[in-house]
Order: sequence, then C-alpha cells, then structure tokens
Amino acid sequence: MVLDCANSSVSDFVLEDVPHLSDYIPDLPTYPDPLQDNPSYAVVKQYYVNKDDTVAQQASNSCLSGLTYDIVVHKNSPRGIHFRRAGPAEKVYFDSEEVCACIVTCGGLCPGLNTVIREIVCGLYHMYGVHTVLGIEGGYPGFYSRNTVPLTPKVVNDIHKRGGTILGTSYGGHDTSKIVDSIQDRGINQVYILGGYGTQMEAALIFEEVRRRGLKVSVVGIPKTIDNDIPVIDKSIGFDTAVEEAQRAINSAHVEAESTENCIGVVKLMGRYSGFIAMYATLASRDVDCCLIPESHFYLEGPGGLLEFIEKRLKEQSHMVIVVAEGAGQELLSENPTPIKRVQGDATPDQLFQDVGLWLSQKIKDHFAKRKNMTLSLKYIDPTYMIRAIPSNASDNVFCTLLAQSAVHGAMAGYTGFTVGPVNGRNCYIPFHLINEGEKNVVITDRMWARLLASTHQPSFSNTKEMVGARDEKTENQTSDS
Amino acid sequence: MVLDCANSSVSDFVLEDVPHLSDYIPDLPTYPDPLQDNPSYAVVKQYYVNKDDTVAQQASNSCLSGLTYDIVVHKNSPRGIHFRRAGPAEKVYFDSEEVCACIVTCGGLCPGLNTVIREIVCGLYHMYGVHTVLGIEGGYPGFYSRNTVPLTPKVVNDIHKRGGTILGTSYGGHDTSKIVDSIQDRGINQVYILGGYGTQMEAALIFEEVRRRGLKVSVVGIPKTIDNDIPVIDKSIGFDTAVEEAQRAINSAHVEAESTENCIGVVKLMGRYSGFIAMYATLASRDVDCCLIPESHFYLEGPGGLLEFIEKRLKEQSHMVIVVAEGAGQELLSENPTPIKRVQGDATPDQLFQDVGLWLSQKIKDHFAKRKNMTLSLKYIDPTYMIRAIPSNASDNVFCTLLAQSAVHGAMAGYTGFTVGPVNGRNCYIPFHLINEGEKNVVITDRMWARLLASTHQPSFSNTKEMVGARDEKTENQTSDS
Amino acid sequence: MVLDCANSSVSDFVLEDVPHLSDYIPDLPTYPDPLQDNPSYAVVKQYYVNKDDTVAQQASNSCLSGLTYDIVVHKNSPRGIHFRRAGPAEKVYFDSEEVCACIVTCGGLCPGLNTVIREIVCGLYHMYGVHTVLGIEGGYPGFYSRNTVPLTPKVVNDIHKRGGTILGTSYGGHDTSKIVDSIQDRGINQVYILGGYGTQMEAALIFEEVRRRGLKVSVVGIPKTIDNDIPVIDKSIGFDTAVEEAQRAINSAHVEAESTENCIGVVKLMGRYSGFIAMYATLASRDVDCCLIPESHFYLEGPGGLLEFIEKRLKEQSHMVIVVAEGAGQELLSENPTPIKRVQGDATPDQLFQDVGLWLSQKIKDHFAKRKNMTLSLKYIDPTYMIRAIPSNASDNVFCTLLAQSAVHGAMAGYTGFTVGPVNGRNCYIPFHLINEGEKNVVITDRMWARLLASTHQPSFSNTKEMVGARDEKTENQTSDS
Amino acid sequence: MVLDCANSSVSDFVLEDVPHLSDYIPDLPTYPDPLQDNPSYAVVKQYYVNKDDTVAQQASNSCLSGLTYDIVVHKNSPRGIHFRRAGPAEKVYFDSEEVCACIVTCGGLCPGLNTVIREIVCGLYHMYGVHTVLGIEGGYPGFYSRNTVPLTPKVVNDIHKRGGTILGTSYGGHDTSKIVDSIQDRGINQVYILGGYGTQMEAALIFEEVRRRGLKVSVVGIPKTIDNDIPVIDKSIGFDTAVEEAQRAINSAHVEAESTENCIGVVKLMGRYSGFIAMYATLASRDVDCCLIPESHFYLEGPGGLLEFIEKRLKEQSHMVIVVAEGAGQELLSENPTPIKRVQGDATPDQLFQDVGLWLSQKIKDHFAKRKNMTLSLKYIDPTYMIRAIPSNASDNVFCTLLAQSAVHGAMAGYTGFTVGPVNGRNCYIPFHLINEGEKNVVITDRMWARLLASTHQPSFSNTKEMVGARDEKTENQTSDS
Repeated sequence: MVLDCANSSVSDFVLEDVPHLSDYIPDLPTYPDPLQDNPSYAVVKQYYVNKDDTVAQQASNSCLSGLTYDIVVHKNSPRGIHFRRAGPAEKVYFDSEEVCACIVTCGGLCPGLNTVIREIVCGLYHMYGVHTVLGIEGGYPGFYSRNTVPLTPKVVNDIHKRGGTILGTSYGGHDTSKIVDSIQDRGINQVYILGGYGTQMEAALIFEEVRRRGLKVSVVGIPKTIDNDIPVIDKSIGFDTAVEEAQRAINSAHVEAESTENCIGVVKLMGRYSGFIAMYATLASRDVDCCLIPESHFYLEGPGGLLEFIEKRLKEQSHMVIVVAEGAGQELLSENPTPIKRVQGDATPDQLFQDVGLWLSQKIKDHFAKRKNMTLSLKYIDPTYMIRAIPSNASDNVFCTLLAQSAVHGAMAGYTGFTVGPVNGRNCYIPFHLINEGEKNVVITDRMWARLLASTHQPSFSNTKEMVGARDEKTENQTSDS
Repeated sequence: MVLDCANSSVSDFVLEDVPHLSDYIPDLPTYPDPLQDNPSYAVVKQYYVNKDDTVAQQASNSCLSGLTYDIVVHKNSPRGIHFRRAGPAEKVYFDSEEVCACIVTCGGLCPGLNTVIREIVCGLYHMYGVHTVLGIEGGYPGFYSRNTVPLTPKVVNDIHKRGGTILGTSYGGHDTSKIVDSIQDRGINQVYILGGYGTQMEAALIFEEVRRRGLKVSVVGIPKTIDNDIPVIDKSIGFDTAVEEAQRAINSAHVEAESTENCIGVVKLMGRYSGFIAMYATLASRDVDCCLIPESHFYLEGPGGLLEFIEKRLKEQSHMVIVVAEGAGQELLSENPTPIKRVQGDATPDQLFQDVGLWLSQKIKDHFAKRKNMTLSLKYIDPTYMIRAIPSNASDNVFCTLLAQSAVHGAMAGYTGFTVGPVNGRNCYIPFHLINEGEKNVVITDRMWARLLASTHQPSFSNTKEMVGARDEKTENQTSDS
Repeated sequence: MVLDCANSSVSDFVLEDVPHLSDYIPDLPTYPDPLQDNPSYAVVKQYYVNKDDTVAQQASNSCLSGLTYDIVVHKNSPRGIHFRRAGPAEKVYFDSEEVCACIVTCGGLCPGLNTVIREIVCGLYHMYGVHTVLGIEGGYPGFYSRNTVPLTPKVVNDIHKRGGTILGTSYGGHDTSKIVDSIQDRGINQVYILGGYGTQMEAALIFEEVRRRGLKVSVVGIPKTIDNDIPVIDKSIGFDTAVEEAQRAINSAHVEAESTENCIGVVKLMGRYSGFIAMYATLASRDVDCCLIPESHFYLEGPGGLLEFIEKRLKEQSHMVIVVAEGAGQELLSENPTPIKRVQGDATPDQLFQDVGLWLSQKIKDHFAKRKNMTLSLKYIDPTYMIRAIPSNASDNVFCTLLAQSAVHGAMAGYTGFTVGPVNGRNCYIPFHLINEGEKNVVITDRMWARLLASTHQPSFSNTKEMVGARDEKTENQTSDS
Repeated sequence: MVLDCANSSVSDFVLEDVPHLSDYIPDLPTYPDPLQDNPSYAVVKQYYVNKDDTVAQQASNSCLSGLTYDIVVHKNSPRGIHFRRAGPAEKVYFDSEEVCACIVTCGGLCPGLNTVIREIVCGLYHMYGVHTVLGIEGGYPGFYSRNTVPLTPKVVNDIHKRGGTILGTSYGGHDTSKIVDSIQDRGINQVYILGGYGTQMEAALIFEEVRRRGLKVSVVGIPKTIDNDIPVIDKSIGFDTAVEEAQRAINSAHVEAESTENCIGVVKLMGRYSGFIAMYATLASRDVDCCLIPESHFYLEGPGGLLEFIEKRLKEQSHMVIVVAEGAGQELLSENPTPIKRVQGDATPDQLFQDVGLWLSQKIKDHFAKRKNMTLSLKYIDPTYMIRAIPSNASDNVFCTLLAQSAVHGAMAGYTGFTVGPVNGRNCYIPFHLINEGEKNVVITDRMWARLLASTHQPSFSNTKEMVGARDEKTENQTSDS
C-alpha cells in the first residue's frame, strides 16, 4: 500500500496509505456524505478532505503543545514519508442505517478514554445519523464472554467528567477467531479499539482475519498509552493531563525535601520504554534535580555515578528531588542483564518490571547508611494510579474529540486496518504495521533533553564515548527538535 | 527584509526575515556560542539552528495542542511565507559579560507571565552566563519613573507557581523617547517586552528609535494575550490554562442550570476580537448549548434569532448554558453602531467595551418577563479575573519555557525588532509589522467552528446569504482546519 | 412543648422539646429499633440515645470547625435552653415496611445537597430496612405538579460527587393544602425538606396541616443555607466548602491587585443578612484589606469613611482587596432607606437585593475619577454561582452524613415538626418555631470580629457612640467567642 | 496543679491547671494587656477571659467539624475534668519590648505548620507589639547548631499558601541542656514548639530545665500530628486538609477498581496508633468497601477473615477498595508479635513500622495466585507524602490562626509548660503531662465506628467474645459519640 509519489510536481515523497474495504470487496456501493446536508457544516467551504491530501512525517520525537514537531524545511532535504490525512470524505461506504459500531477499551487506564468513547458515539450519531453503537465490556474478552451494552448520546453524556473507562478494561484475553466470530454474528461492521502497543498489534490480527473472511467491517485503532511511546504519532491521549498531575507529585516531593535536612524526594512516574512524562513533568515543574529515563543510562557507584551526584547536590543545598521513569535503569535491577523487550499486550506491568522507585530508594538509603556523618531522609512517592485515574483536562478533551471524529470519518469512508493519530499536528490514518514497529523514544541527542539537563544541572551519567556514539548515529541532516 | 527564495532548489517561498543589529551597526564582533561548551548540550548533535532554517506559514486559524496547524501538502500548492526558525546560533553578537538585559510586562494579566520571566532570567544565566538582568516594574512607565529590580535565578526560582506578574503591569504610559533614553542611560542592550497587540506596536516604536540612534540593543517581543488573537503565531501563552479554568465556570453554570427549572446559565469569557477561548472551552466542556463569539454575528429578535432558540431549547430540556465571548454582539450593544476597531494599547478594557454578559442577561430576562407562562431563572457568571490570575498549567509552563529560551537565543544572536512565537508548531522570529497587521480570528467557515455548531446544535444565527458570502471569500485551495 | 427542668438534680434548664406523632395520635404501636440487630452496631455499647439526653444552647454566634462554640462554664451561670439530642431511639414508631418517605429540595443551591439526599436514602435503607423513598422534583411545586422519582441506594450512589441537587429545586410555589393532599394521596409518611429560612417556615405550615388532619406523617426539616444564618444551630451544610471556594476568588483578586498599580480587587460573597462566609474567608485567606458585612455598618464619604480608608491603603501599598458580603450596605443602596426585612421564601434573590458589588465598584471608580492624580484600576469578581455549584468537600460530606442520619433517626422515632441541626457541636431536634424566629448574625462585639479587624487593620467605620451602644447591649456574663 | 473545685456553687469538677511563671519566680511585675488599647478590640465588650473560666473535658474520641464532641448533659453525671480556657488576660507578664520569642518545628510535616508560624509572628506583632521573633531552623538541633532567622510579618506574609514548614524540621536531636543553654544565651523568653507526641514530651523536659534554672521563659507546645492521636484535644492541625486529600487517593483507587475486572484498589493512609484519617476519609468518600485501622484487629485467613470477605465482595461486585491505616495489623506483620509501643520522638517512622500496605497487597496477591479461576488485579496507592505536603485548607487556616493566637495569649499571660489545644471546641491550656499520657484512639464501640461499618458493610473481623469484652469495658454512662 505504499505509493511512490516521486513524479508529483511538488516533491518526492512516499505515501504510506491504509487499506480500504474496496480493496478486497468489489463493487461496494457509496453514498453521499450526510455531513453535506448537516446545517452545522453548511457554511464550511469544503467540508471534506481532498482524496490526495497527505501529511508529511519527519523525524521527531517530541510532543506536547504543538511546539516540537519537525516541520522545518531544510534546503534539499527529501520530503520523507507521508500519511493520508483524516477527515470527512466526499463519498461514504456505509449507509447510516446499516452501521452497527462497537467500541472496546483494552489495557491500562489513561485520562481521556471516556471522552473518546463519548465522542465516537456522539460523532456517529450527530454527524452521520448512526444510532447503533455497542459497548464491549472488559476489553477483548468482552467480545465473546459478555453481553454488549447499548451506547447512546444520553448514556455517554457526562462520562467525560469521570476518570477510567465506563466500559471496563483488561489485559490480555485476545482470541482473534472468537472475536471475529462475535463481530460477524452480531452484525458489527465498525470496530473501534482503544488501546496501546499490544492492543494495536491484536487489532491488526482482527483486521487480517476480517479481510480473510471478506467481511465489510472497518477496524479502527485509537492509540492509548499514557507513556506517549507510540511511534509515528505526535502524542497520545491523556498525556497532557498526566504531565499536569505528575507535577503535583513532584511539588509534594519538593516540599518534603525542602522542609527536612538531607532529604531526598523520589518520584516514580510512568514510562516503561520512554521517558516523555518524566521529561515534560520535569521541565514543567522546575523543582527537579535529577531526571532518570529509560533512554539515558545511568550507573550508581563510582565517579560520575548517581550516588556521587546525590552527595554533591545534598552538600550544596541539603535537599533534592529525583524523578525516575518506570523503565529507567531496569538493566541495573535485573540479575540477568538481558534487555527488556517490548512484549505482546498480554502481560500486565506487574509481571514485567521491577519497581525501580523502591529499588533506587533502597540503594540510596543503603549507601548513606554506611556513611556515619550524614543522616538521610528519603520520601518516596509513586503517584501512578492517581495520575491514570483522573479525568482528562480541557486540552485533552479537545484532543480526544478530534481524534474520535477522525476515527469515525475514516471508518465511514471505508478505510480499515488503521490507527488514527496526529502526525505533525494533523490527524492521519496510519497503517497498523507502522504503529507496531519499534517505539517512540526520547532522543537524548536532541535539544529537548539538553534543555532538561540544563534545567536540572544533572550530569549525563554516561561516558563520553557512549554519548558520541549516540550522537553520531544521528544522520547529518536531522535536527529534529525545536 | 523580505527575501525571495524562488530560486531555491526545494521550492518557491518568501522569507519574512527579521532585522539584525549588523544591519545598521557595521563591524560588530561575534563570539562563539557558549552553549557549545555547555556540558548539558555536549551530546546534542547540532546544538545550533542552521542559518537558513525556515518555517512555513500556511493559512490556519486554529490552535491548541498542536492538532490544527496547517501543514498539509496540497499538490501544486505554493509554499507561501516562511519565517526564520528560532534557536541557538553558531555565533553570538554579545559577550556574556557585556549583556545587560531587562524585562517588562505590559497590559492585562494572563497565566504564564512569571514563567516567561523566570525562564528568560534562567536561560540567560545558565545557557549564556549572563548575570545582569533587570526587572522594569509597572509596565512601560517603569522605564523612566521607577527603580529597576535585579533579577537572578534565586529571585525567580519559585515565581512560576504564582499567578500574575512579579514585575507588575499597567496599561499605557508608553513614551518612546523617555524609554529609549532610559535604555541608553542604564546601558541596557537586550529588552524583553511581554505584552499584547498594543504593546507589540509600541515595542516596534522602541526598536525604530533604537535603530535610529544606532544603539546595539536587541528589542524582543514576547506575545501575551489570553485571547489568542495575535496574527501569524499558533497560540499565545496562558491559553491552555485559560481554557481549562473557563471549563470550571461553564461546569458551574451547567450545575446551576440543571438544578433549577427554566434556568439559563450565562458565562462570559474573554475574547474581545476573537472567540478562541469561548470556542475551545465549549468544545472541551460539552455542557454548552450556545456559544456566541465576535466572529459570528447574531441577533436577538425574530425568527432565527437567539431568543427564539432559547425558548426552543428551554422547552426541550428546561435548562441551558450560554457562553458569550466579551466581544460578541458588541454592534448590538452600542447605540452608534460603528464597528469597534482595535486600538492602541493605551486603553483599558473598561473604557472600550460594554459588558455583553450583563446586557445579554438583561435582554433575556426582559424577554421572558413579558411572557406570563414561563418564569425564568438566570445565573450569570463572569470568571474573567479568576481565569487571568491563576498560575499556568504544566503545558503552558513548558510552552513558556521554550518561548523564553527562543527569545534569548534570538537576542544573543543579534536579531532585533522581532516577536518570538510558534508558527506551525515551531518557534520563529517574526518581524513586528506582521504581528501588528490585522488580528487572528476564528474562521467560521472552517471545520472547527462547524464542529462546535455540531456539538451545541445551535443555529448559525446568520442568514444564508451572509454565510455564503463568508464562505466564498475563502479561496479554493484553503481547507486549513484539521 | 417547653419543659421546665428546674427541679432536676444537675441544674436548672428549659428543654425546648419537639412535637411527637403520639401527641396527637393515640395508641400508636411501637417497634424495636432494627439497629439493635444490625451487625454493624453489634459492638456499640448503647446504640440508642437516652430519652432524656439534652444539649445546652449557649449564646454563641460563631461556627466552623468546632472551635467557637460556647461551652465555657462560668461559675453561677444559668444553664439556659436545652434541646433534645438526636440519635437512634430504643423504640421506633414506624414499621420498616410501612414507611414511604419523600425528599424535596427548595431554594438556592449549596454544596452538600446531594450528599444529604444520598445519606437519607442510604440511612433509611441500610439502618432501618426502608426501601420506599420518593424524590420530589423541582421544589415544593413538585408535590402536586410532577411525578415522583424512586430513590434507591444504587440511584444515589455517586451523587455526592456532583454539585447541585439531582432533584432540582425552585423558589416559591408552596401551596400547603395541595402539598398535604399529595402527601396523603400518595401514602407518604415521612417528609424530608431541605431548605433555608423561608422553606423551613413553609415546612412548619405542612406540619401544622398534617397535625390538623391527624396524619401519621413525620415532617422533618434539614437546614440549608450557604449563608450560615439559621438561628440556634452551629452551622449549616456547605459552609466549609463555600469558605474554601471563596478563598480562591479572594486569591485571584489579590493576584490582580498586586500585579497592577493602584489596583483594587473587589470580591462579592454570599451573605444577605449575615457575613459569616465573608468573615471566615477573610480570616482564612489573609489577603484581604477590608471586609464589609451586613452586621457592621459603613459609610463612604467623609472622615472615617470607606473611601478615605481606600485612599490611605492605596497610598501605603498601592493595591488592596475588598470583600463585600451581598447584604452589606444595603441601606446605602436603596433610595428609600427602610431596613431590608427577611421575607418569606417565595422571593428570589434578584428581586430583593441590589448588587452591592457593582454599586460599590462604581462608587469607588467615580470617586477616583474625580481625582486627577490617581488612575485607578478596579477588578470586580462575583464568584457566587461558582461557589454554590461545587460538590461538598470531605468535611461537609461527613457533616451531611451525620445530619441526614440524625434526621432519619428522628423521623423513625416518631418526632415531627422539627429541624435537625448541630447545637454546641451535637445534632439536636429543634422545633420549627425557633428556627423561624430571628436569624443568626456575626456579633461584632465578639472577639472573632475583633480578630478580623486586627487581621485586616481596617477601621470599624462606626462612630464610637454607636459601637459602645452595641457593646453595652451585651450582658455582663457573655463572652461567647473563643 | 490540680484544683479541687468540689465546693464551687455550680458543680463538682477538677481543674487540671497549668504552671505559671509566678509559681517559681517571685514578685514578677505585670503590665496592662496592650489589647485593651487596640482599636480592633475597642468594641469587644470583654476582651479578656475571666481568670476562672474553664472548659470541661468529657469522654470523647471523635473529631472533625465540631460535630462529635461530648457535651451532652446526662442527669446526675459528674462534671469531670476541666481545663483553663485560652484567651487574652487582663494583665500580662511581659513588657512587649522585652519579649524575645522563638519558634521551632519538629517531626514530620503536616498541613498548617506555616499558617501557625505566620500567626504566631503576626499575633505577637499586631496584638502585643512584639517585634522580636526568631525562627529556629531544622528542629531541636537548630537551637544549638544553627543561626536563627528573624521572623517578621513581612517575611511570613505569604507562607500559609505553601506546604511544609519554612523553618525546616527534623526527627530527634533533642539535647535539653544545650537547648536551654541556647535559650538562656540568646535571651529568648518565649518558646513556641510545634510538634507531635515525642516533641511535646521533650518540650516538657525543656520546661522542667527552664524552671529548675529559674528562668523567666514561657514554654508553649502546639500539637502537631496529622494522625490526630493526641489525647485530651479535639483535633490537631492539618487533619481536615489531610482527610480532604486522602479522599482524592480513594477516588483514584475507586476509578481503577471499577474500570478493571476483579480489581482491588488498596490505599494506605496515615495513622500509626489511631485510624482517624482512615475512618473520616472513608466516611467522607463513600467509595470504600473495607477500612482497616489499628484499633480494630483483623485476621487474614479462615472464616470471618479479611481474605474471605474480599472473595465475597469481589464475587458480588467484581471490584473493591480497601483503606488501610499505617498502623493497622502491625501485630500480623512482625515476626515477634510484641505490641508496638509508642516511642520517644527520636525515631523516624521508617525505622519503626513495616509497610502494611505493601505487605497486605502481597498477601492478597499470593492468596489469589493460588486460585486458578480468578485473576486478580491490585492497584496500590500510598499518598502519604502527597497529603502531608499540601497547604492547609480554609478550615485549617482558621483553626491554626485561633490556635496560634491562643498560644500567644497564654505565653504573654505568663503561663508555661502547657500545650494549647481545643477541648470540647474551645481552645484551652493543657499541662504537658496529660498530653504525654496515653494516646487518643478511635473507640470501636462508639457509634461513629458503627456508622463506618454500616457504610462499608464490612464485617468486624473480630470474634464476638472479643467485641463484647471491648464493649463491656465502657462504663454504663458513656455514650460519647454523636
């Protein structure tokens, strides 16, 4: 599904397009988009997106507030990969009365799930006149082991003000065959799947099976990971809210540390494979003396190590705040130092990760316990579940609304097998396989991480050789941060 | 200062460049950027921006959360206007010890002022080793009528957690000659001016006078308007925070309205010339039945008018919430219906605008008082000063940090006479004159406004002819919203 | 119903007892209290209150946090008036299956209404096995003009997290005869009425009519007034929450005022006849320079007047914050200076009071407009509806729970014609007539008000003669504040 | 210092009086109280407390919001123990210019410390004209190992809006001799000590040494324990705020639990020897299925045990929330099951208590891991440091203000060796020894705990025999709860 647009008159790029129902079902009828008769859209000059509108992806690993996407034009730079822009289509592939949509939420909580659910239901109802939307309860197993619940604008009216997901969620329980059986048996023809990395991989399996059976069913993924580590897309839902709430925990740690002599406040934040929340919360709060993330290795003992830095900082100001992302230093914790690989969505966090916050706290305590002349006080805060469970803030509410509407437009237009997400600030349709390849990380050779280092005045904890290696991996033309 | 880049190898565009000290002062010495020796930046591959990095502006009137910038590539579309990208330069035009910077805040409050002040001080100190930063108190008049206050990282350490501005602010009092005298007499060579529309115009006057006198002084504007109506740039500081807080007021109005029969909650929000806060708060909260903004005219009486719509909505659900932006319907309030023109920054809001919230509330009460069979309860909320005075949220803190650092980089690099701001998600240097031409408005023929209409189910309150006219003003190729 | 207990062995007091169903219905059967078989109460030594437990009322006009009740023992002091203590009775006068309860909310909103509704329903259900509770919607008129809604623990499960009242409310519409008809026709035998001053008066009418008809119906009032001005009782629901939220508005005014030269922040708070919210919010926030309440007269012009004080304070510190209670200075506003009398609950606030906040702001602006040399900036904040509509805080939640349970215990025990409320920190049953006589006020000759004056350093705005008069009205033995 | 007032004309009681400087220093001069000339107090009828005003203590173990103090009058009941009422005295024992006061904060953080510091400084300054107040930094060791910091109204002006303590705090380091040396050497004559149980014991040592040396130094304790477990007094500072914040954590646990199948949210709250925070937060939030406190023993295994209850509740509703106080079940955790005794203030929490939250979570996980057919998800939240570090809410601000002023009045009046605190809603002076005897506990045979059981529907986890024993320990006449 990759189009080579090298001959286009503007410039060369590769369009990573998404599947369409008409790819494998011939002679599908189309219908005029009901939006064109919607009075709310009456004044919009062109209510639909052009079929050939695309959005350029450029190397960027930053996010939040639209400030750090890489859309700088370098002279002579290749234009890179493009994605299909999200939006209403001129022709839709579903008659409104024919649509039977369902929504399922999988994996851990993050702020905004209920807003997305609400806006899929309201978007289908008010924009397309679709009145049949089913909620699948308890994640993937809900497809085959539970009754569905009808979702109407009235039912979902106030749910965006609550944290969590009204549908319930779970880890694992994916059984492609049973799920597609249920989809087929219940006559469902639009499947909206909210979930993270593993969930999106399993959504791809559902799409493959649906295509294999030749069903007219659009399978749409909505990326959900509070860690913000999904590749390609700029940011995922709930990220802004999470950073906001993380700041509260950091502030508490700061108050505790400042009020007590030789006191260290340690805050563990989410982020198994990427340290975005830790990095942005650190930059936002300005109360942090040291931020540890998975992407930047550190070591405890010896010159240049973390413990030496802690001693130094305590001597200078007698208190400090350390923020540590969940996945930081995992190679130090495990006895067998095999790198932790991203796994299928089946496993819950508890089974995979050791608690770096508790481990680190103990190591610091042990270190200072040996030293007679320095009594240490250490306060450990793990706000994870308090962050995950809050309702989304205003910024995320608007973000979730646009994301949900983009998903609905895509399904109605007959696209399938895609995840919707913002690329360079624009919602796009992205083929599942790109979402499921690799992960998005904080690039520690980017200026955003340098900014963090400059703000905390922490050392890089890495020897020069390693860093230069990291630096040189970046190709000459990339300066992707703002 | 406009460069025609038509011959560039990539594509045709016009670079709206900004002035530089070397434009009018010959033989200025340069210095290596101290950042290149900063350990925090040691691993950054390329710590400085390329001199020819530019950012494309494309027609867009939307904002918030990086979702709605217009970076879609249309085939054959011209590349439009570009701006110089903000960032560290390879060579700087100030020796660190020579720098004497000052900061002034003008006009009304908005969340984030203290964060910007903090980050200019810390950015100059930690990135460039600049130790002399002066605070000008009480706005422009502070230049010539007050003592300055020294600003150090220690002084500004916690100010980002407080609302308002530690420097104080005022409307008016601009006296170009006296201000530049003071700049010259005090040996100030970098001037950071935080303010809105009028303030930026006056900053331009300072720049002109500075250039006329041939002074080596960089004059840098940082755009500050909670209304988000500054042209060219994507959004201004404090906007996210304002929308978040506005939601609280809307929620209260909703609770009041729902708890009382025939009750209307009216919330007045900021927005004199543009309705961005009202639009985004409405989209975020989902509790609003009608959103009135300056860009979309409405009328009260008769068929299709607001009062008819209110009656209808009350009949349906017996309560409703109306959000009205400060500048909405001003032409209805004034006895002499001359359009309200944007004025120089000298005037305070009180003198210019009549309170549309009180006016509208009275009009609605009067209307229903005439009707015997319907007792109306109306609750009016004006949260303006509660919104303006809160500290910035996490998202705005990060935004303010990057903006302040961009301003510092620009001044150190010798640029002057510019405002810093995000264009298409990238901080850029924008010449004053572009900031001061026109204003940014909600485009009611864009899809974002249609989304709002679809969410509130309110009518457009405009006759078809007018709307079609508005629609047709847009050129064929523009579909600027997401 | 007043018992003279002069012969009791402890000391002399008067018990202001409440009516009982058995007063006018002979031979009512009683039942053992189901609580005695409730496992949760199994370990409680004495689950019921003694029939002769009473609580002493002593002169006190303060409230909040249990710190200012007057329970000091003066030697030789008379013991004063006592009230029947609330709590479970050994025998109840209703069989659980026979009970048909209803709940109605009247008048304006205040935080905690939903918590009281929830706890009446859950208290009746879980403590007494009562399964039939009806919600009356929209205040008193709901009795005869609307359907009732069934209230179960499941329906009310989460409502305490929302502001407002799920039952809706209204002003007026009381028709005793129709209401008692409806009570009789629907077989209701317990009536819980949440409302303020006027509502409680009307509840007394219902009780009288019920007694006249000889119905076995308990009529119970739950005092609801955010102003905290109900006599006899220590405080009313939502007061703590209101003070908390009022602080937010004061803080905003403070930030605005501090950030602008010659700036006055004016905050209007609830309090028509008493200034409790204004007084406590002022004491809690410490940001206020002047607090105006109905109980303490002030005048604008001339020596010792408010305007003189404002000029003085602005000269000293160039900014100030004024808190003004809704009812303060009403005699200055009205053209005919008749004192404002408390009225029957029928009238809405809008019809009675002029907006002292807007009036005062204009007067201050006018005054300074005359003075050439001093430009004034004034920011007016009216957070009334934002305060009323928020959910109750933890402290109020516990308070509402105990109040609701006390009401339920009283009704089950056969008491009627009473309001439940805390007296000297103890929930008691208070006969309606005492609630409806007079109102509770801030006593400006008490030490709490002196504390406020000492904290704001504001003058008393009263001439000495007036104050000495007020002081001398207090009898020698009273020092009722803490 | 115990006076037998059996012959008083009102009734029999024992006054537990506090020491006075004149007890051991003869011929101390007195001065008229400056308050009587303070214009703010001009209108107060009697600005000082009568010398023989006392407050009755009655058996009560409840707190919060003044609702549960035991002031019911039982016929023929003895009047019990009384305390000296706090307030201004007619004569003071210090000349304002002579006073050199100091303030020290010891032990862990709790909300409100900064408010108390602020109000001692402002109270001394504004009420008594005392201008010399020193801050002792870092707890007790600060007396002899650090410089003091001058505290003025300007310095402390905004500190009540921040969490923590501006003076810093520490555990231990008490050296009576060195501390009193420092007091003597620096000429300090009023010592205000904020701290909990251990701190108050050490304050008693300071008082004894001061008396032994015959110094004219008032030693005043201000009780600080977020656990609210100090005997005699109604509640301690920060308790309301802590309950409010604890509710947030419980709400998060509830959202997590409701969103996931077979999910248990476990929230650990403060409370080593008493479960007040856990009890009130549970009653306030209503989201809790099981509340475990130190006062109510529980066991895990077997019939009637916690694990059985968890299984039952999960079967019923598939999720649950458990709140566990820090000190609950400690006898189950320790290998040697000796009861944990309250210790001198020297030890930090970390050294004494094992983490019951982590232990309990593991036990529950282990239990369900054995059961094949039930996958459990458990979310553990420990909000301790986030609760301790927040600023005090409005209610606590007012509470802290009155407490601080009471302390100042007592010291100025020449009293010493006392702790100030509310008894039956009135601030009193309490001799140190009563504060240091025993601790305040939740009485599980009181109706408040029964209310909690009724709200959570949890079993008592105790066999009948044990409970009946507990019940019978209570004497017949006590029904101390509301």
